[in-house]
Order: sequence, then structure tokens, then C-alpha cells
Amino acid sequence: MSLPYRTALIVGAGAGISAALARLLAAEGLRVVLAARDIAKLADLAAETGAVTVAADAADPQAVAALFGEVDVRFGAPDVVIYNASARVPGPLASLDPEAVRQAVEVTAFGAFLVAREAARRMEPHGHGAILFTGATAGVKGFPLSAAFAMGKFALRGLAQSAARELGPKGIHVAHVVVDGAVRSARRPDPADKPDSTLTPEGVARAYLDLLRQPRDAWSSEVELRPWVERF
Amino acid sequence: MSLPYRTALIVGAGAGISAALARLLAAEGLRVVLAARDIAKLADLAAETGAVTVAADAADPQAVAALFGEVDVRFGAPDVVIYNASARVPGPLASLDPEAVRQAVEVTAFGAFLVAREAARRMEPHGHGAILFTGATAGVKGFPLSAAFAMGKFALRGLAQSAARELGPKGIHVAHVVVDGAVRSARRPDPADKPDSTLTPEGVARAYLDLLRQPRDAWSSEVELRPWVERF
Amino acid sequence: MSLPYRTALIVGAGAGISAALARLLAAEGLRVVLAARDIAKLADLAAETGAVTVAADAADPQAVAALFGEVDVRFGAPDVVIYNASARVPGPLASLDPEAVRQAVEVTAFGAFLVAREAARRMEPHGHGAILFTGATAGVKGFPLSAAFAMGKFALRGLAQSAARELGPKGIHVAHVVVDGAVRSARRPDPADKPDSTLTPEGVARAYLDLLRQPRDAWSSEVELRPWVERF
Amino acid sequence: MSLPYRTALIVGAGAGISAALARLLAAEGLRVVLAARDIAKLADLAAETGAVTVAADAADPQAVAALFGEVDVRFGAPDVVIYNASARVPGPLASLDPEAVRQAVEVTAFGAFLVAREAARRMEPHGHGAILFTGATAGVKGFPLSAAFAMGKFALRGLAQSAARELGPKGIHVAHVVVDGAVRSARRPDPADKPDSTLTPEGVARAYLDLLRQPRDAWSSEVELRPWVERF
Repeated sequence: MSLPYRTALIVGAGAGISAALARLLAAEGLRVVLAARDIAKLADLAAETGAVTVAADAADPQAVAALFGEVDVRFGAPDVVIYNASARVPGPLASLDPEAVRQAVEVTAFGAFLVAREAARRMEPHGHGAILFTGATAGVKGFPLSAAFAMGKFALRGLAQSAARELGPKGIHVAHVVVDGAVRSARRPDPADKPDSTLTPEGVARAYLDLLRQPRDAWSSEVELRPWVERF
Repeated sequence: MSLPYRTALIVGAGAGISAALARLLAAEGLRVVLAARDIAKLADLAAETGAVTVAADAADPQAVAALFGEVDVRFGAPDVVIYNASARVPGPLASLDPEAVRQAVEVTAFGAFLVAREAARRMEPHGHGAILFTGATAGVKGFPLSAAFAMGKFALRGLAQSAARELGPKGIHVAHVVVDGAVRSARRPDPADKPDSTLTPEGVARAYLDLLRQPRDAWSSEVELRPWVERF
Repeated sequence: MSLPYRTALIVGAGAGISAALARLLAAEGLRVVLAARDIAKLADLAAETGAVTVAADAADPQAVAALFGEVDVRFGAPDVVIYNASARVPGPLASLDPEAVRQAVEVTAFGAFLVAREAARRMEPHGHGAILFTGATAGVKGFPLSAAFAMGKFALRGLAQSAARELGPKGIHVAHVVVDGAVRSARRPDPADKPDSTLTPEGVARAYLDLLRQPRDAWSSEVELRPWVERF
Repeated sequence: MSLPYRTALIVGAGAGISAALARLLAAEGLRVVLAARDIAKLADLAAETGAVTVAADAADPQAVAALFGEVDVRFGAPDVVIYNASARVPGPLASLDPEAVRQAVEVTAFGAFLVAREAARRMEPHGHGAILFTGATAGVKGFPLSAAFAMGKFALRGLAQSAARELGPKGIHVAHVVVDGAVRSARRPDPADKPDSTLTPEGVARAYLDLLRQPRDAWSSEVELRPWVERF
């Protein structure tokens, strides 16, 4: 069953979930635009999938507006927008650097707001579109020594819920994906002594496609994913 | 992508979600067995889908054991088991009939335990299978004048979580579907003055198939579904 | 500040939280009635606190009705009712005994319904009273190898939410206390190698008194308690 | 029972919950310091309660450091720190002003982080202290047309959970109070047509004192409060 969408914008694109999404969405026939601060690292992926890359700082209001403007002009307004950017500043609360925490929360949550806002502006007139946020366990449970990430991912979940309740009745599917576990990558392979304890990017990306295929008479606004062997 | 399962047993089968599931699963090539206390009402559905019906009281331990025994003999052990039975006894707490409440909780939750237990026994040796529970908003939020349904559906969710944590690492996918809204039916059509405010059985059933297709490196153990116009 | 209540009935009374509650409530001047299946074990506590004991099986509708009838006649209807009974049947789902699970759920949740129902009948005419349920971590998170306890404690929480929403606006304070940790006792002392890792019965009981003292313009319907060193 | 604390710092102090807290804490014998951007409005309260006022912008790292420094010098490090500041920017997601949203989230959540960080630095060496955050319904459920407040209050809850898990085992009681309803005030009295539908500042403040009195063997890290007639 083909997806009822045409153009996907993935903000905060990197090598993991975003790359798998780019592959799956391109295979479904969607035009894919990848946005990141550093797009040099996306060159191979773009070549492989035919995706276009645009440099943008997701936490900067003007950069986000410019990003959407560029996508509008080149490909038309995106009808699928996925927010993947996040940052964490681990450490004891007492010794965290305020400026680093501010920036981490801005990348994880404020940027998601900026992106969702631009997406809503474009999707509302058509009563059609999907906005998906990549969440984490940290958005559901605040872990010790991880205050900045807890703040950012909780804020993201609050944003996703608010947006889902506002935009759903306008025909826009908003969902928050709780990635409850580590995602394996070249740098961080599945541990040999605990096989299958990491999520695969492809497995996660498929859940996004399931969301995009849901008929609007049975939408999910939150999905949680974890590997089968995971303790939770 | 075809489903990695062969035989589905739907317990508490009726005209709504179960019927849609029977159609979708049969179309995927699975053998479908429908169990209910009254199977006369399932005759047309069985004829249409090729499903087999077996009479059983889901809240009766011996009946559930006999049901699984019959399926074992006739079709082999089911590798997909779905629990759909539930009962509610609305009314003020002070005037509820204890016996009616007991029975409602047994149909909604104790029967689910009996069915999950028989399923686990058959799936564990193979490290393969799926057990899906049909939940409701009432399993996440206890509403007034609905104590019996709250007890039953909360208990069901507790069972689903416990089973997911125990059986997941054994290769069995356990998930709880929160059906957050009314499901439309012939008797209860979508209201003319509030179009699209009900879930379709097909939309809900498709979410079960999405769960059955998830690769085990990215499983969901809970999915919530509601129509796009729903306030929640 | 004295409590605005006169007579407390504690159902499922034992040596831990109930005993601490009996002491604190008696010290506040309330008449305390302790109900349990086996009241011989409560003799010392009754002698110490002046509490009265009544034998009753909390999961038996007639026994619960008789219990409340006896309290009515001897002391007047209770205006504080606390439900403490619970039972667990640990073990793998596949090997749990259905009858044992049924009974465990009935003690943990169905009995709570019976008691809440009798309490509501007596409190509603006065628009005054408090019903407190002793919950557990297992009512918020379903643990593996603990399906029966998960079912019972989840059902209890569903009941508590439904009752709070129905009875609160009638002036009856309903609350669910999540006892998130082991409670120390003579048989199960605080572990020497992990000091302070258990809750004290007195600490838990004080939280119930805090609830009973809350003005109705700022009620809690759920409180969670754990020892300061607890990981959660 | 007297409180085991000496000096309370309330950040984001205003006329409602903070004023009630100032009165109750002063009556318990604590030295109370009230911090707000505009302290002129606190003059009467200060005069009435003997509290000291200090001007500070809670979202400014240097201002928060200076605030704590001043309290240290004048009264010794505070052993109770309460964060009450918040800001909301209601409106449709598409038309929210990014800068206003950023500032709202900073006041509601980033300021709480700054304050908790300074508090932790002072309390950790003593293994003693309490940090209380004033949350809202919006921190548990993201409402439509309220994305900024949802982001801020969710982030606050994530911070509170992370801090509770990190600092609890160090002897510092961290708790998040979910104020689930409107708090009545001179400007916003209890509605005549729906009496008792607002929380009283005194009722809310008493719950904070209950938290401060909890023995560490039975701490709550989250308490929710609502008026008895509230639908929730």
C-alpha cells in the first residue's frame, strides 16, 4: 500500500534512524530532504537514496524558516516532517554547565517546536500531512545524571501531545515515537555478549512508515519501540 | 510483506474488531479460528472468511483449556492469539451488583489470563508467537460510574505488561492495543452530527497487523488508537 | 490539627501498615476497627490500641456486607475505610494455577470493590468520608513472573480512579497510595547491607494521615511513597 | 511536628501559592526569602510575614547564582528551595512567536534547572534539604493551543524526576507538585456558578508542608492536587 504523501523533510538527519527513514521513504517514491547542521556527512546517503540535503541549525528560528522556504521553492511544501535532532549533557546536576544545558534543550525541544510550527503552517490549509517526533525513554522517565536530556525529551513529548490534540482534528497526523533503547550503528554495534539488545534503525524506521500508513480513523499519537530482549 | 504466522485464534470474537481481524488475517493466508460463547452469530463471518468457529466461555479455565486442545488437534497450536472479550457493568459504585461485577472482571481480565497462559505454554517451546490484547481507554483512565470496566481493563493492561516483560525475551510478541474511542458498527453507526468520530473496525484491525509485522528488533508492547477528530 | 473523622475501618489488617495505621488513628482519637480473615493474630495490636477486631473474608460479598453491618450497629458507620488486603501468586505465566490467580485477584481487587461499595453507600448520604486503597508498584508497572499481582493491583488502581471521580464531587475523598518498595517488618527487617532501603510502616501510615487531613479544596487522589535510597 | 528545615527560598514568588507558602513556612519558624523579578509587589507580604525579598530573573544563570550567593551571605544556604515561576504563551501552534515560546520555556523549566542546580550544590555536602517544583496539569498532559506551556511544564517534570532519582539517595527530598486546576485569587475568585471548583493557595501550600514533614523512609516525589468537585 503506497503512502499518501509526496515529500518528506527529515530534520536532524544523521546516520541512524534518519538514514533508514530516507531509504524507506525514497523506496516508497517520496522526495526526501535531509536537513542537518553538517550536511557533508550526509553526502553518501544522499547519493544512495537521491535525497537532497540542506544545511540548517534546527534550534535557530530564522534558519528553520529559511529551510522550509527553500524546500517550498524547490519541491513544494513537505507533507511529511520528521524531527530527529537531540542533544544530551550528562552529568551530576550540580556540575552541569547552564549554557550547555540551554543549548541541549533547544536542540531537542525548541527546534522541534520551530519545525512543527512551520510544518503546521503549510499543512493546515490542505488538512493533510504528518509530523513525527523521535522521542526517547528519557521523555517518559527522568533518569539521574541526565537532567538536560530529561528536560528536552519531556518537553518534546509535551509538544507532541499538544500538537496532536490541536492538529489531529485538522487532518494532520502528529505522533511521538518512544525509542526505548539504544539504536545500533557502525560506531555502536550490537553487543556481542548481549545480542539483539539494540534496536535496528530499519526496525525503527518501519514503525514510522506504519504510522504514515494508518488510516485517519485509527491513528496512533504515540508508539514505543524496543528490542525483544530488552528489560523495561 | 507476509506475516510470519500461520494460525490465529481470536477469543471473544464478535461482529466488530474481530470480524475485521478475521478478514485481514484470512486474506494474509492465516488459518483463523474464532472462539465465542455464542458461535451461531459468527456463521456468516465464518462462511465469508473460511474461519472456523469454536464455542467456549473465555472465563472458564476448563473451557479455555479445551478450546486450545481442540485447536491443537485440528490445526496445530495457534501462533497468533488475540483476546477481545470484555464486559461492562455501568452504574454508581454503591448500587453495582457484586456478582455482575465479578463476572465482568472475569470476562475482561481473568479470561485474558487463561488464554495468555495457554498461548504461552504453546509458544514458549518454539520461541515464536504473538499475543495481542484488546484494551480500552478504561484501562488507562478509570472513569466514574464505570468501576467494573475500569477494574477489568486495568487488570488486562497489567497482565499485558507482565506478559510482555516475561515472554518478550522468549521471542513472543505481547502487545496491548488501547482502543481509545467507540468502534462503529451496524448497531452503532458513525454519528451524522459528528462524522468520523468513531473508529472503524478495519482501521483498528490494521494496527494489529502492523504489530504482527514488526521485526523483533523494534517491537511495540502498547499502541493506542483513536479517530482523527477525537478529543483526548 | 485533628482529623475530621470518627471511625476507621481497616480491611485486610495485618502486622505492617495496618498496625501503624491503627496506632496513629487511635492516637488521633478515632475508633478503629480491624477486619481480617484471621483476627487471632491481631489480639495484641487490639489490646495495645483499643481497636476492635472483626473476622471477615474481604473477597466474600456477604461477609463484607455483614462486616459493615456489624460496624454500623456497634460503632456507627465508618467514615474512614482503608483497604489493605492483597495476595500474590508469583511464577511464570505458563505454570500459574488458574484458581490461585482468580483468588489472588479477588482478594486484591474484588474485595476492594466490595468494601468501597459498602463504604460509598454509607458515606454518600452524609457527603463525607474517606476511602483509601493500599496500592503497590505492581499497580503502575506490570512485572514479569508476577501476572496475578499485576492484574490485582492494576484493577485496584482502576477502581480507585473510578471511585475518586465518582465520589469526590459527592464529598468523599478517595485516594490510592502507591507503596513503591518493600515495607520492613519483624520477619523482613531492613537489610544490613542496604540500610534504609525499606519503607517503615509508620512512614507509610503517616502519609495516609496526611491524606485524611487534606482540605477538600486540595485533595490528592494518588500518592506514591518510597524510601529515600530507592532506585525507581 | 516542626519542620526539619531552617531557611526557605521561594523563587518566582507571587500572590498565590507563594504567599500562602510564605505564611505557613514563617509560621513554622523558617526564615523565608522571596525571589521574583519584580519585588515591589511582594512588599506587603514581606511586611506581614517577615520574609525577605530579593530581585532576580530566574531564567538568567548569573542572576540565579547571585541570588543564592546573597542568601548564603545573609542567612546561610537555604535548605528548602521552591520553584514557582512559569510562563505561558497560548495560541495556535502555527502562529506562536518563537521568541516568546523560548522565553516561556526558559522561565518555566530552564530557570528551575538553574535553581535546582544551585540548591543541589549547597545541599549535597550536608546530605539534607528539599527542592520542590510547582507543576501543573500541563506537565502531565499536553493540551491543544498550549504548546509552550506543555513544553515548559513537561520539561519541569522531567527535571524533577531526574533530580529526585539523583539527589534522593544523597538525602535531598525532591518533589513535583501537580497543581491540577486553577488556583483562586483576588483577580480570579472561585466562580459563583461552580463553587469550590478552584484550589485555594492555602490548600496547595499545606501539601508542600506535608512533603517537607515526610520522614525519609517514605518520601513522595510527586503529588497531585485538585479541588473535590474537579472533573479530571
